[in-house]
Amino acid sequence: MTRYQLEVRVVPRTGLLDPPGKAIHHALHSLGYLGVEDVRVGKTIFLQIDAPSGREARGRAEEMCRKLLSNPVTEDYEVSVLGEGEVQDGTDS
Amino acid sequence: MTRYQLEVRVVPRTGLLDPPGKAIHHALHSLGYLGVEDVRVGKTIFLQIDAPSGREARGRAEEMCRKLLSNPVTEDYEVSVLGEGEVQDGTDS
Repeated sequence: MTRYQLEVRVVPRTGLLDPPGKAIHHALHSLGYLGVEDVRVGKTIFLQIDAPSGREARGRAEEMCRKLLSNPVTEDYEVSVLGEGEVQDGTDS
Repeated sequence: MTRYQLEVRVVPRTGLLDPPGKAIHHALHSLGYLGVEDVRVGKTIFLQIDAPSGREARGRAEEMCRKLLSNPVTEDYEVSVLGEGEVQDGTDS
């Protein structure tokens, strides 16, 4: 079993409303940043998954996206495997 | 003046508490994903900035990070220029 470091990016689907992006856009204009457009906000989730292979770790992360991490109607997700290491016994953060 | 597409990543500083990460970690365990550890959640902000050069666009984005987009005590940020295009008159999204 190997511990994989993964990055999951969840972004609002293009063309859909993005209220946090609108709020940041508005706040930047208020601060005097006028040449700023099309602000969109997504989440990046970093996590470690113990799995027999990187392919399996990525598959589990994609399943987590469908079940919990993303809203399938309004968001798109993308999973990347960043690295791998040994599983250390007794770790539970 | 060129319009630059930038990506700003804001992540909780390593070693500091990350309550959204803890909540996702807990929810994943509840769903049966036991081999998941060290979940951390950051934001990714995509924005377009009109500037005379990519260097200038990046500098403005870094200033926005210090003033608004990140919490300087608890978060780190990273700015990347993804691409560039012509400024079109009359656009204001």
